[in-house]
Amino acid sequence: MARFEGALAAACAKAGLIPAAHAQAIQRACAEARFDPAELALAAREAGTLAIPFLEALRRQVPGDAASSVHFGATSQDVIDSAASLCLKAGAERLEALIGELGDAAASLAKRHADTPTIARTLLQPALPVPFGWKAAVWLSFMARSRVSFGRAAREACVLQLGGPAGTLSGYGGKGAEVATAVATELGLPNPGLTWHSARDGFARLGAETAILAGAAAKIARDVSLLMQAEVAEAAEPARPGRGGSSSMPHKRNPALCMLALEAGQRAPGLAATLLAGLSPEHERGLGQWQGQWLTLRALFMAASSALSAMGEVLEGLEVNAGAMQANLARLAPPASVPADDAAKAMIERALAMWREKAP
Amino acid sequence: MARFEGALAAACAKAGLIPAAHAQAIQRACAEARFDPAELALAAREAGTLAIPFLEALRRQVPGDAASSVHFGATSQDVIDSAASLCLKAGAERLEALIGELGDAAASLAKRHADTPTIARTLLQPALPVPFGWKAAVWLSFMARSRVSFGRAAREACVLQLGGPAGTLSGYGGKGAEVATAVATELGLPNPGLTWHSARDGFARLGAETAILAGAAAKIARDVSLLMQAEVAEAAEPARPGRGGSSSMPHKRNPALCMLALEAGQRAPGLAATLLAGLSPEHERGLGQWQGQWLTLRALFMAASSALSAMGEVLEGLEVNAGAMQANLARLAPPASVPADDAAKAMIERALAMWREKAP
Amino acid sequence: MARFEGALAAACAKAGLIPAAHAQAIQRACAEARFDPAELALAAREAGTLAIPFLEALRRQVPGDAASSVHFGATSQDVIDSAASLCLKAGAERLEALIGELGDAAASLAKRHADTPTIARTLLQPALPVPFGWKAAVWLSFMARSRVSFGRAAREACVLQLGGPAGTLSGYGGKGAEVATAVATELGLPNPGLTWHSARDGFARLGAETAILAGAAAKIARDVSLLMQAEVAEAAEPARPGRGGSSSMPHKRNPALCMLALEAGQRAPGLAATLLAGLSPEHERGLGQWQGQWLTLRALFMAASSALSAMGEVLEGLEVNAGAMQANLARLAPPASVPADDAAKAMIERALAMWREKAP
Amino acid sequence: MARFEGALAAACAKAGLIPAAHAQAIQRACAEARFDPAELALAAREAGTLAIPFLEALRRQVPGDAASSVHFGATSQDVIDSAASLCLKAGAERLEALIGELGDAAASLAKRHADTPTIARTLLQPALPVPFGWKAAVWLSFMARSRVSFGRAAREACVLQLGGPAGTLSGYGGKGAEVATAVATELGLPNPGLTWHSARDGFARLGAETAILAGAAAKIARDVSLLMQAEVAEAAEPARPGRGGSSSMPHKRNPALCMLALEAGQRAPGLAATLLAGLSPEHERGLGQWQGQWLTLRALFMAASSALSAMGEVLEGLEVNAGAMQANLARLAPPASVPADDAAKAMIERALAMWREKAP
Repeated sequence: MARFEGALAAACAKAGLIPAAHAQAIQRACAEARFDPAELALAAREAGTLAIPFLEALRRQVPGDAASSVHFGATSQDVIDSAASLCLKAGAERLEALIGELGDAAASLAKRHADTPTIARTLLQPALPVPFGWKAAVWLSFMARSRVSFGRAAREACVLQLGGPAGTLSGYGGKGAEVATAVATELGLPNPGLTWHSARDGFARLGAETAILAGAAAKIARDVSLLMQAEVAEAAEPARPGRGGSSSMPHKRNPALCMLALEAGQRAPGLAATLLAGLSPEHERGLGQWQGQWLTLRALFMAASSALSAMGEVLEGLEVNAGAMQANLARLAPPASVPADDAAKAMIERALAMWREKAP
Repeated sequence: MARFEGALAAACAKAGLIPAAHAQAIQRACAEARFDPAELALAAREAGTLAIPFLEALRRQVPGDAASSVHFGATSQDVIDSAASLCLKAGAERLEALIGELGDAAASLAKRHADTPTIARTLLQPALPVPFGWKAAVWLSFMARSRVSFGRAAREACVLQLGGPAGTLSGYGGKGAEVATAVATELGLPNPGLTWHSARDGFARLGAETAILAGAAAKIARDVSLLMQAEVAEAAEPARPGRGGSSSMPHKRNPALCMLALEAGQRAPGLAATLLAGLSPEHERGLGQWQGQWLTLRALFMAASSALSAMGEVLEGLEVNAGAMQANLARLAPPASVPADDAAKAMIERALAMWREKAP
Repeated sequence: MARFEGALAAACAKAGLIPAAHAQAIQRACAEARFDPAELALAAREAGTLAIPFLEALRRQVPGDAASSVHFGATSQDVIDSAASLCLKAGAERLEALIGELGDAAASLAKRHADTPTIARTLLQPALPVPFGWKAAVWLSFMARSRVSFGRAAREACVLQLGGPAGTLSGYGGKGAEVATAVATELGLPNPGLTWHSARDGFARLGAETAILAGAAAKIARDVSLLMQAEVAEAAEPARPGRGGSSSMPHKRNPALCMLALEAGQRAPGLAATLLAGLSPEHERGLGQWQGQWLTLRALFMAASSALSAMGEVLEGLEVNAGAMQANLARLAPPASVPADDAAKAMIERALAMWREKAP
Repeated sequence: MARFEGALAAACAKAGLIPAAHAQAIQRACAEARFDPAELALAAREAGTLAIPFLEALRRQVPGDAASSVHFGATSQDVIDSAASLCLKAGAERLEALIGELGDAAASLAKRHADTPTIARTLLQPALPVPFGWKAAVWLSFMARSRVSFGRAAREACVLQLGGPAGTLSGYGGKGAEVATAVATELGLPNPGLTWHSARDGFARLGAETAILAGAAAKIARDVSLLMQAEVAEAAEPARPGRGGSSSMPHKRNPALCMLALEAGQRAPGLAATLLAGLSPEHERGLGQWQGQWLTLRALFMAASSALSAMGEVLEGLEVNAGAMQANLARLAPPASVPADDAAKAMIERALAMWREKAP
């Protein structure tokens, strides 16, 4: 929020709307200001928005007359939404790195096990032989598509919000577009050219794509945890002291990382639904639908990040038991069925190519 | 489903996998076959999938030996998913037409009312003057972005599913890619090159975008219904005999079309969440998560179509009461506030440009 | 809807508000009236409510002046909500019967297998020995609690709605309470004494309890389908020709009934969320939140009924393989662990007692 | 969690299962132990459960051999779920107090304004005259029913969890029931007599009832915020310096407290859906569905508490403008309509009686 106010002051000074000295004082204060989160939280509840107590606290730290130039022409939602965009942009970069790691690990498994026969299972029953690499290729194709879609949604959602009270930049006397461009450049956010105070599709789309990431990790966790059943024993999470133990049964080894991904996948759809239900705020700034969206997006980003990082670690160290796969195959595959063939290998190749081609 | 089986038979014959005479008999049967939906529904419940009784009914209508070539190399989910893609593709085209009509109507209002002053309302309280066209421009920007995203999601989701029991095209003896290409071409569906039996992000994404469409229509309905309050009276749904009456109060005129859009917007998020919660089916074909997805997507498409068509009709015939706007403005705007200015007009222009540029 | 209008006419005549001859004509028409659903559906969309075209169609079938007494003092929402209550009451009775059958089957398994040793599985890993009956006892305890809660929610939700345009019975000249009592008695619905046009907690609560029923069935389906994995093979759905086959792999036997319950459990939470999101309609009759609730409740009731009946059939015919349980136990239980003991049997007894005590 | 372990040690000593000296040492440690939340959080992620690092930290603070008696016969989920029950029980008491305050304020308005005429509004259009007290009576009836249902759900959900690894109390050598009773008594939690590790209906039901509370507050907020529109001006949130101001428009007075309730009502349904989707964990302890339930319930309790306390403050200080109501009525009511009558007053009386009768 302070970064936004600093950038706004600089832009307004550049456009001749506030004195340059004011802008310098505000920028310095924004860079150095200290805030008491607990105090701000209580005051925000009282005020109905964090922006008001935040601006009061900021103005107290801006010397002299310059305080009167803080937040020039802007509205509460401008600073709240732009600050959310800044946080989400950083979060999205972290998520994209985790997608990359998880996808790379899946790609590596797909390649390494293109010739490792295992049994496909459909409706939880043994079906026909496939290479184990095909399983990883399906995970990979999911990650490849989702990387592209999530990245696009993040770029489109994490943009500047600046319009002033009515959303039209009317407080900048004809220089609104110039100010918005300068603020956007300074913050490293795209300038969408139009305010989105009451058109919240960007955040809804980002929420859905984040839930899809959690779901992709949960899909991998579902398969690994089923393969890790003692009765199946075809693959296992990497072992590590202190990981996946039991408080009552020392002999147990639990799929603790898969649990993290499944837990996140469980929580994400309801959170995404909250954002999809927040698309009809009233008039030019709604009452209640948008105010908690940053909170919901934060929960979604944390869930997806927990899930992706857990499964990245799992796939990087996955213990694949080719012998158990062979034994299960011999026992469970229909007698006439042939081992994994060229068709499957070709599909694995296509998934690998898709992952490479869709790299950012 | 019959179209899929017909196309598959043709492709298999072309690849030399089944006799050409079989393919001709199957294609003819697929074009002419008659099915009893009630009987199929009951049998589907018994079988655990519609595919099995459907194929039995189809085979009964294929003469002679040709019946043995029906569904060659395919699996139940291939025909279910591909048939869903075909239906959804047609539905998506209808939704895109409705988006176009609604957006065009919003564009027309934005242009026509670029100079009609009204009051912006934030947190349900009067704020500052804006042109009424700015309200329509916000609706338009929402539609412009959503048209692009929905169209892309529909194209990526409505694709061929063909892989056979394990998803790897292993039943086509090295000719799987050739068969898949031919089936896709015949059906007019893209061939994704990879099966997605257990990677359901495409349908989840399409569900989210469809919910966003319902939300966009609900946003417009929210604003119009609030403007239509007797105490505000700045705009109204087009009147028509039999529309929006009351069963008990003949004097009333209800926002009946806005109600349809708000109702759809109410129902869509939960349906989209169901699809977002269905991303982690077990192994190569899951148990329970994917089987009802076509049902949920059907409900979503119907909701969005109801909402978009209702609001298209509203915006095309919207009664705008500029006098009431002027009166409310005089009464409610802060004394010092100036009427709508060039900044707002520039924003309206940008929304119109965005709508034009993002046309399909 | 016709039953409601007939009962209303009779009550109004009894209270001296409309002529007795009118009431008789209306009652006769309501008993015999024929409606064209497709025509009503289209007209309902036009009117913004089914009530208006329904009343028109009904009045056309009421001879002479009596038509003017139809719907006396009532409002559209009265007939829509009361008709929904009537349908849901019948549906709830059917669901309660299915709960009874499923619970009885679980009770029978719990009793029969109080001494059948199997291995408990926690976090999808083998833990300690328990009787197989303990598994069934957990299912039973879930059903026992849910039967009570669902029954209560249904009784509290399926009640008369009668208040007239403003919800206060103001159209009955001091005889409103008398009329409401008579209508309620005639319809066999409780009279809540207060209208609930805009306080929709009853339907929300019923939706949540219905989702819990679907979830209870899905829990049983989860366990049975995992036990039915070929690698575990400790239990199986009852076999039947045509049940659970595969369109491509004749050797397969799929858990087709478990699939139905898991599918329903997948769809129910989003539907219940729609009702929980519909608690804040505007003023005395809202715009959009309540109008589709009957549709959502219908989908929920169908999902729960599909799930409960499928799992009732599964538990009644469950194939329990005690030998496989013993073999898995010997292979997977920690060496020191003792077989199922009196503690578990006591718990099974408590679950059986709870089921008996909580019988309706 | 420490309270649970202390109570367990005492109960085990009383049953002769661990030395009395051990129990005393453990109880003392549990009362005085200090934990580093940040360290525990990181270790919990590693271990897959908070229970393991918590128990390690606790054992380090228990002197000598007594550490070996910590957590006797219990499992991780026992301490996690019981601790959640303890927290939720305290939270539920707070929520019930807030329900009481909000309901009392609504009751007071209903009584005070039984003769204040206003206009009912249906589908956002003026309908017929009602007393303003009728509006409050509808709010009150919602609160009355929800108080009963929430209280019951909280009492049924906030119960002891104690069963050991397989849920059957098998670790207590025939004294399980005795131990469970003693632990329950010490903690002030009911002993359900059966473990619910894998039958999570209690938490799901509590989540739904909590969402209904948020919805009840949102319903009141919806009405008050609509009445507070400048064009309607029939009621207003209590004013207070620093409350509901605008960062850009000093003339504005925003419904800041209503916003809090609407925001909570927006977020609650998705959270409740997460719990309704967590009813089918695998076998005796599931992987992923239950582990985050305390987190979701915490978010729900915070949302409901925010909403109820905000609206309690609103209703206690609601500014009712009877003159504006009269003026709007004169302007908007149909000419023939009569003022609020005895029927409405009788309904108000019934709502007041319901609130009194359903007091805890």
